[in-house]
Amino acid sequence: MTLLAMVSCQKEGNAIKLANEKLSSPDGNLEMEFSLSNDGRPMYALSYKGREVIKQSRLGYVLRGKKIDKKGVNTYGKPVDLYNGFSLKKVERDSLDETWEPVWGEESKIRNHYNELSVTLVQKRKGANKIKSGNNPIDPTYGMKSDADEVSVIIRFRLFDDGLGFRYEFPQQEGLTYFTIKDEITQFAMAGDNKAWWIPGDYDTEEYTYTESRLSEIRSLHDGAVEGNASQTVFSPTGVQTSLQMKTDDGIYINIHEADVENYPVMNLNLNDKTLTFSSWLTPDAEGWKGHMQTPCRSPWRTVMVTDDARGILSSRLILNLNDPCAYNDVSWIHPVKYMGVWWKMITGKSSWSYTDELPSVKLGVTDYSECKPNGRHGANNENVKRYIDFAAENGFDAILVEGWNEGWEDWFGNQKDDVFDFITPYPDFDIKALNAYAHSKGIRIIMHHETSSAVDNYERHMDAAYDLMDKYGYDAVKSGYVGDIIPYGEHHYSQSIVKHYLYAVKKAAEHHIMVDAHEAARPTGLCRTYPNLICNESAKGTEYQESVLPNHVTVLPFTRLQGGPMDYTPGIFEMDLSKFAPDNHAKLKSTICRQLALYVTMYSPLQMAADLPENYEKHMDAFQFIKDVAVDWNQSRYLLAEPGDYIVVARQVKKSSLDKAAKGVAALKDGARNYVDGATRFCAGDKDVWFVGGVTDDQKRELTFPLDFLKSGKKYEATIYADSPDADYETNPEAYTIKHETVDSTTVMTLTAARGGGFAISLKER
Amino acid sequence: MTLLAMVSCQKEGNAIKLANEKLSSPDGNLEMEFSLSNDGRPMYALSYKGREVIKQSRLGYVLRGKKIDKKGVNTYGKPVDLYNGFSLKKVERDSLDETWEPVWGEESKIRNHYNELSVTLVQKRKGANKIKSGNNPIDPTYGMKSDADEVSVIIRFRLFDDGLGFRYEFPQQEGLTYFTIKDEITQFAMAGDNKAWWIPGDYDTEEYTYTESRLSEIRSLHDGAVEGNASQTVFSPTGVQTSLQMKTDDGIYINIHEADVENYPVMNLNLNDKTLTFSSWLTPDAEGWKGHMQTPCRSPWRTVMVTDDARGILSSRLILNLNDPCAYNDVSWIHPVKYMGVWWKMITGKSSWSYTDELPSVKLGVTDYSECKPNGRHGANNENVKRYIDFAAENGFDAILVEGWNEGWEDWFGNQKDDVFDFITPYPDFDIKALNAYAHSKGIRIIMHHETSSAVDNYERHMDAAYDLMDKYGYDAVKSGYVGDIIPYGEHHYSQSIVKHYLYAVKKAAEHHIMVDAHEAARPTGLCRTYPNLICNESAKGTEYQESVLPNHVTVLPFTRLQGGPMDYTPGIFEMDLSKFAPDNHAKLKSTICRQLALYVTMYSPLQMAADLPENYEKHMDAFQFIKDVAVDWNQSRYLLAEPGDYIVVARQVKKSSLDKAAKGVAALKDGARNYVDGATRFCAGDKDVWFVGGVTDDQKRELTFPLDFLKSGKKYEATIYADSPDADYETNPEAYTIKHETVDSTTVMTLTAARGGGFAISLKER
Repeated sequence: MTLLAMVSCQKEGNAIKLANEKLSSPDGNLEMEFSLSNDGRPMYALSYKGREVIKQSRLGYVLRGKKIDKKGVNTYGKPVDLYNGFSLKKVERDSLDETWEPVWGEESKIRNHYNELSVTLVQKRKGANKIKSGNNPIDPTYGMKSDADEVSVIIRFRLFDDGLGFRYEFPQQEGLTYFTIKDEITQFAMAGDNKAWWIPGDYDTEEYTYTESRLSEIRSLHDGAVEGNASQTVFSPTGVQTSLQMKTDDGIYINIHEADVENYPVMNLNLNDKTLTFSSWLTPDAEGWKGHMQTPCRSPWRTVMVTDDARGILSSRLILNLNDPCAYNDVSWIHPVKYMGVWWKMITGKSSWSYTDELPSVKLGVTDYSECKPNGRHGANNENVKRYIDFAAENGFDAILVEGWNEGWEDWFGNQKDDVFDFITPYPDFDIKALNAYAHSKGIRIIMHHETSSAVDNYERHMDAAYDLMDKYGYDAVKSGYVGDIIPYGEHHYSQSIVKHYLYAVKKAAEHHIMVDAHEAARPTGLCRTYPNLICNESAKGTEYQESVLPNHVTVLPFTRLQGGPMDYTPGIFEMDLSKFAPDNHAKLKSTICRQLALYVTMYSPLQMAADLPENYEKHMDAFQFIKDVAVDWNQSRYLLAEPGDYIVVARQVKKSSLDKAAKGVAALKDGARNYVDGATRFCAGDKDVWFVGGVTDDQKRELTFPLDFLKSGKKYEATIYADSPDADYETNPEAYTIKHETVDSTTVMTLTAARGGGFAISLKER
Repeated sequence: MTLLAMVSCQKEGNAIKLANEKLSSPDGNLEMEFSLSNDGRPMYALSYKGREVIKQSRLGYVLRGKKIDKKGVNTYGKPVDLYNGFSLKKVERDSLDETWEPVWGEESKIRNHYNELSVTLVQKRKGANKIKSGNNPIDPTYGMKSDADEVSVIIRFRLFDDGLGFRYEFPQQEGLTYFTIKDEITQFAMAGDNKAWWIPGDYDTEEYTYTESRLSEIRSLHDGAVEGNASQTVFSPTGVQTSLQMKTDDGIYINIHEADVENYPVMNLNLNDKTLTFSSWLTPDAEGWKGHMQTPCRSPWRTVMVTDDARGILSSRLILNLNDPCAYNDVSWIHPVKYMGVWWKMITGKSSWSYTDELPSVKLGVTDYSECKPNGRHGANNENVKRYIDFAAENGFDAILVEGWNEGWEDWFGNQKDDVFDFITPYPDFDIKALNAYAHSKGIRIIMHHETSSAVDNYERHMDAAYDLMDKYGYDAVKSGYVGDIIPYGEHHYSQSIVKHYLYAVKKAAEHHIMVDAHEAARPTGLCRTYPNLICNESAKGTEYQESVLPNHVTVLPFTRLQGGPMDYTPGIFEMDLSKFAPDNHAKLKSTICRQLALYVTMYSPLQMAADLPENYEKHMDAFQFIKDVAVDWNQSRYLLAEPGDYIVVARQVKKSSLDKAAKGVAALKDGARNYVDGATRFCAGDKDVWFVGGVTDDQKRELTFPLDFLKSGKKYEATIYADSPDADYETNPEAYTIKHETVDSTTVMTLTAARGGGFAISLKER
């Protein structure tokens, strides 16, 4: 070995180890190795059943350096490295095996079982990391006086049977009080050219179509994968987002994501496609810095799920387990919701959010809408809202969402306008008091809509008054939206300040007993465990994209986007040819009706919409019965068949206590009477066991076979099977379905055919 | 003329004019000419008594261009020029002569007298300003569909006897709805190498020492003029701030500033020192843009005061006249305040804002101060605050300011920390309820202190609760502070969003009947006319800078900083050798005691502090009598002598209704009794005429002679004259003064000697 090669080797951290600590998963299948190279670089590697999953990968940070100039001004100094020169000070081991109960979820009991290794690393200050101002030694990370000559960092690893989580912890210490992150350099070195389902890395949107390719193909496919969005910031031709689902050539499923992103920017991954190594790429703030930290503090968990059965990714609760327990004492006010909405009409162009077409622009408090000519297409008008309330009540829904109810929609978007909405002033044709009273009298709540237009500062200014208005009229849920570029200017949807804002809004909402469904916010990372009034998010391409949602999309989302928490995907479209009711819209959804039913089961969310128009449901009331019957929260879930990008079949057992909660939520309406029973409550009434099954495929017609062995042994069940007709096809015949009733039991093995872009749905009720 | 020279000449706009409109001031001394060059560039020039003051200078803007890319995304396009290609569509003329009454001020009636010219300019869209997306013509400034083929802009000029104001107005129009300013290119072309009193242009601080130099010398002196500050952003070696005071070689005083800066960034000036032309240089946002505008809208007024008598600058009300009338119906709750404070102790290092020295950093809501060891130097403790209350009440003050009362001061500054203060949680040794009750029982209010550490977003989150707390305890004034770099990250103290914030805070305070004294906020531009609860600002280097305040400083400030509104300069220091009470502080103030008294008259503010410690006043109770007696709001003001950088002598007549208001303010204390009478009220009691005179000089000893012809003719007045002793000198003998009582009348001509760094103060009470 030449000297040069040896130095290079040392640089890569592959030389003599200063430390080497191993950690095994409880079942022994996963093994993690932490090491310190001879230049003090922390590294880790991960293997599964003896096969390399993550090769030796670096850990650490680069911090912003500061110095004090001759005029006494704090200014930028040389960056401070927190990725080498470490020695191992302490090693601690721990383990846990507990079971906890989420407020809502895919199952009512979750096992949290791991072995833990935490290493305390110490870096001696030297070189750029040890500076003086005159005779005063100062903290180079913040230019403050400090006599400390070392910095300590803890890296905590938790190894579960289904994967690894690790995070950085920065104890309170004299030599590190405040610091600014220049870069986090956590690496994930892949052992092979895996297949991946990826979307482009972006600081402002997650609303992309998934591309399936090998890692080495990402660069060439990247530009084509970037679809237009109201706000987007692509940062690298090999940047991708998490949760990133991969599959190795020998059949191991690897999923990289993060958990518990609270006061920290969202992580993207950037691929070095020569070495097949991903590096963390944090979302910057308006000045390009990645995070402003105060010790004691910790990073989010970086997670790597590993399994050789794709269903194991879907059943993993690793992300939730790595989040903190529920922060609220009283969660009685948090309940599942099945809702309809004055929304699809606008998305498809049949109606408008705005009230008038007369205004070049709006100034809140100045523009007098009573003087404006209505455009005649405003969706959130009294009559139309009543129509939705009536239909929703008749069919056992809990709520309706009404968008476009408040002043400001004439110019809400894309203008970097600050004072865009006040969240309290209805349009002239939306009688907020009367409509809420009418809804409540029918056992329906209206869901509030707070589109912020990403003017975060403006939203915060109006938030108290907005929540007060909700209290006044008995709203207990809000859909918030963050369309367009963020204000404060230069910040991004996923930078630290804005991540903090989303959680600020959720915590403030909790004070008012309000549930939040945030759209265009940072993708979820399991925070809903701690703050369960974050009832769901959007944070991915949903039904609103209409024709551009590809058939395989919903076979990928449960592996990726849904790993962090539920999605308001807005399923339930029955009329795929949008021109039928919105003549200017020539889009056709790439789905059969039965697939739309299946999504209520395959895409878990405790807040589920039936997104289509009442008149479209009225044409297929037999199929609509499934949407009326289906529950939205679960006692158990069984992942029967799964392959990312191909198909998913899931069975879920109704959680009766959630149905009670939903019913109680509506019964609590101040000025309303509970004349109507929630549809799922009606269907699932009594103590009989009830399950629902959903199956979806991609653009391949598939025959899918699965056993019903999850049913109670020895019991008979009435199965209602909603399936694509033999000639159904998303392109040629999307509305063709059959509904069959059969008696089944736990020994039944079912085979159903899903059309191209199709699927099936089954209700199973114990006799 | 060669072709090249001709083109160049046209570019400078000196060729054939397309328009030429003249405007004269009411007295005919000022003449303004608006013209349009043959390439359609708007220009203006200004002359005074036939002498050129502003040479032909350009007007206009460059806007951010937008375009729509192939994926349908709005993106940056070529900048759109709004500075040439105009034609003149309409010329309108108007005039006004009115008198209005400010809520408080240097005089009780203000004349607003001007002639007005407004020109409506139209620019045809062409070239970069006319773009298409596919077949759709779009608005190049915001990428929106627009069929408009022209843009119109109004420039409104108002010419007063004491100067010019002009602004840009953007009517609501199809072709210009939203736009982003890349640059404002308003120019001020000087006719000669004027002398100027300037401070470096900066986006974040105005706390600089003035440099007196010719314009051509600015570049070479600039770096030396940049003193260190907690937050500063110098942008150009020839950048200076407004209000900029200049003097021509032939004795004309020119002052450039702006008025009514509401939803717009603060303007600096950048000098082309070859052509001696200043250009407007707006403070950018975090992305570098200068302003986000929605039509209809208008720029602030750009102002040029002109006079050949320096006193004319001091008596000018041009800035106030260009602001909108008072926005509040009820102003009864706004009253003048003379206060002391628990503050100088901390500034000088004798005490601390913080409660403990034990904490490396603070987390609000987590840090338990009851567990911390007090440092024994915390200023805002119950005992010390009571001592101040007692002294203030005994001596007829209205209020005391207490800084450092709330949790968070251990690490408040320089850490870019967001959650820095909550503005509601007192330290353990500050009993907010008991202290307010104690103060009120003595006729004293406590002034609230909201240091934000420039975490603007954090302040806004807590503002409602903070004002609610003030309501609860009867606070009616707050000193706010913005030390350190702004959060949102990348924004500046003077960028548009933050300018909006300052006014947001003032308007919210008004809802609670709270007066605001904002430190480190944008320098005032007369907004106090419209929002008179903006009772004063800091926005310049004040007494807190101790030794580094040069003797000529207060002879410049009334010409510059005070043009926009009152300053909380915090005068009244009696102990110039700070080591006498703060042993580690070896600074000595460059002032005599009498000069400190004079500042109460020369530095107008309706909120005036007596900044020194009670024990320092107790050594000089005879001189302190002037501070007890002096009023802080005025019926008339006479500027007796003035030369920028040299000396100022001012006489002011007491406004009796303001004294009543101040007394009423204290009497309104909920749980207190008015046992003590405001000192000025006591001194000025009855219907007898009362005046105060103040005089200050620079580092020259000066004999200053002035007539008392402002006194009522035929009446005798008792004059109490506080003057520097003959041997007084700021360096060698700052505490030497004499107090004489004389009888004077309107025929008296007074001659007083001000020591180096000295001054004098006189009370004049009708017998």
